[in-house]
Amino acid sequence: MSITAPLGFRAAGVAAGLKASGRPDVALVVNDGPDHVAAAVFTSNRVVAAPVVWSRTVVGDGVAHAVVLNSGGANACTGPDGFGDTHRTAEHVADVLGVSAGDVLVCSTGLIGERLDLPALFAGVDDAAGRLAADGGPDAARAIMTTDTVPKEVLVEGADGAWRVGGMAKGAGMLAPALATMLCVLTTDAVVDAEDARAALADATAATFDRIDSDGCMSTNDTVALLASGASGVRADRAAVTAALTRACGALARALIADAEGASHDIAVTVRGATSVPAALAVARAVTRSNLLKAAVFGNDPNWGRVLAAVGTVPADVAPFDADALDVAINGVQVCRAGGVGEDRAGVDLAASREVRIDIDLHAGAAEDVTVWTNDLTHDYVHENSAYST
Amino acid sequence: MSITAPLGFRAAGVAAGLKASGRPDVALVVNDGPDHVAAAVFTSNRVVAAPVVWSRTVVGDGVAHAVVLNSGGANACTGPDGFGDTHRTAEHVADVLGVSAGDVLVCSTGLIGERLDLPALFAGVDDAAGRLAADGGPDAARAIMTTDTVPKEVLVEGADGAWRVGGMAKGAGMLAPALATMLCVLTTDAVVDAEDARAALADATAATFDRIDSDGCMSTNDTVALLASGASGVRADRAAVTAALTRACGALARALIADAEGASHDIAVTVRGATSVPAALAVARAVTRSNLLKAAVFGNDPNWGRVLAAVGTVPADVAPFDADALDVAINGVQVCRAGGVGEDRAGVDLAASREVRIDIDLHAGAAEDVTVWTNDLTHDYVHENSAYST
Repeated sequence: MSITAPLGFRAAGVAAGLKASGRPDVALVVNDGPDHVAAAVFTSNRVVAAPVVWSRTVVGDGVAHAVVLNSGGANACTGPDGFGDTHRTAEHVADVLGVSAGDVLVCSTGLIGERLDLPALFAGVDDAAGRLAADGGPDAARAIMTTDTVPKEVLVEGADGAWRVGGMAKGAGMLAPALATMLCVLTTDAVVDAEDARAALADATAATFDRIDSDGCMSTNDTVALLASGASGVRADRAAVTAALTRACGALARALIADAEGASHDIAVTVRGATSVPAALAVARAVTRSNLLKAAVFGNDPNWGRVLAAVGTVPADVAPFDADALDVAINGVQVCRAGGVGEDRAGVDLAASREVRIDIDLHAGAAEDVTVWTNDLTHDYVHENSAYST
Repeated sequence: MSITAPLGFRAAGVAAGLKASGRPDVALVVNDGPDHVAAAVFTSNRVVAAPVVWSRTVVGDGVAHAVVLNSGGANACTGPDGFGDTHRTAEHVADVLGVSAGDVLVCSTGLIGERLDLPALFAGVDDAAGRLAADGGPDAARAIMTTDTVPKEVLVEGADGAWRVGGMAKGAGMLAPALATMLCVLTTDAVVDAEDARAALADATAATFDRIDSDGCMSTNDTVALLASGASGVRADRAAVTAALTRACGALARALIADAEGASHDIAVTVRGATSVPAALAVARAVTRSNLLKAAVFGNDPNWGRVLAAVGTVPADVAPFDADALDVAINGVQVCRAGGVGEDRAGVDLAASREVRIDIDLHAGAAEDVTVWTNDLTHDYVHENSAYST
């Protein structure tokens, strides 16, 4: 149930003093091979943190030996000096591990616009290197947490049981496609070539992390990295790797939503009957970004008018539909039928469970169903995000 | 300072029992001519309320004699029956006033998905018709309030002082372009032809109501209607009418933001140095829709990293800029310079005033500055919107 469960990996997590709280804040993940295949996807934000710029280059050749991750600072919007800090961090890790700096991925998370305390970070790397262990995954998962209340880990078996995918992720706010704001490291001991790894990771994240949206805010630091050691000696084809990665990423994405800042409800918005998957996604995302709807769910109010008002904001060329054909069900009660009043909204009990299902039928086409997860908008969200940096 | 200040108009506002609170909820505005020129702009939401469907048709010929407005129910998502209710309302008003139903604009605001109490509404219309007065504007302004805490009215003099524009508006939540969620009636006693009225209103609303965004949520009922009586006997050209309407709409838009649900700060996001006005608008809107930034402002935290993270979400084909060239000033303190750390954020005191200025320089082009107004995201916003319909 961690990134060190697949063969060929060691990890560690330590407290280096980057967090004022004194909690663990530096993680190291090492791929001992025999293969050192790597792939990664990053935020699509145009304002990206120094570690994203660095890691994009590292992963370009499909090879990486290690990932260093820190919480306690995003190293974003820190200019050329911040990029130098990331570069020096990679070089330091490379020296300690005896690998090339060009094979060290760097991930950072925390406040934007502050330089990292490099001496503290380097001491943390040294400490972590001395603690690297084949059961160190859980320590690493704890060291990347920011406002997360629990570490997020996953373990998935390959189709034939002969290889595994392990994963860890952090992220509790600023979650929006694409990607959901987060750091994620995935490991596998399957034998997989670099191009298959890249394609499988892209498909898996598109179907999972890109379909959660906690607060509509896109981060500067999102990174999902995959390391493949080949240590099982068993070759996996692209389809099998994609399937396993999708299961792993899906579980981690769901765990991120379940721990989102201040949330009291997880909301699954499913759109059916669209003319295409992109059309369905556009409608689902519009609904998951409605502050009014999300505040209503917090108040256990099945205010379906706010669902329709959000659906109606999607341009016709993006998602064709007839407003008078829209059906909406909340927790299975069809509160809106053909764009008008359906069953009594009093029949919907949102207080009964954390999970809320909003099903929208556009009656416009035959595209497969698309589900995007979000949270309600709560007092605690406002509180956490009005006090984060001060 | 009201819609009855220009010559040729009478208005009234009464309590008809549509609101559970017993507060005024039906308003009537009559243009006594000699001209009956009318223009209107409506929500761009594809899910529109029955009164919007009706009023679009009414205004098609550039003529209207009266506007009936109700709070206490939006008559949205009410299907063919709801449209029938609007149609019958217009016919009732027409009968009472002795005009054609096709010259009666209808506006509704309140909860979506509930039918209106027509007998109560009709009784309210009868009552209002009996109270129509040349100083009835303020009563009408009060009758269209929902969660507004104060009525919003304006009076602007034409360039030569020979004619006037009066206005009233309501709207305190679900405010987003285009339009900001709201009802607004503008009156003028200038002599203006229908095509000039239409063009002037479109330009005035694009520069004002379309540049406020309280919570990113677009309404189903937004209507801005202009009635021109010609009673001053003075002809006004398109430019003069546009200028006066822009001043009137600007003042009302600013008043809407100042009264937005639960807000404790009004935030002016100004974008300069864009390659075009649409590019500047896209950047400003991305920033005004960042829940994280808005929560930070509520906490009096000048978290400029959240400004950059929002700016970076705008696609490059929409707004070309170099992320390493971005400058951000908050209340005049340049906290971000060239995409990195600028002056000390501790120099920004957000607690000192309700108004917050965020200035973003893209250094990409020479388009004119664009300002979009929004609010902070507060506990009170969450509270009001989690309890509105229950």
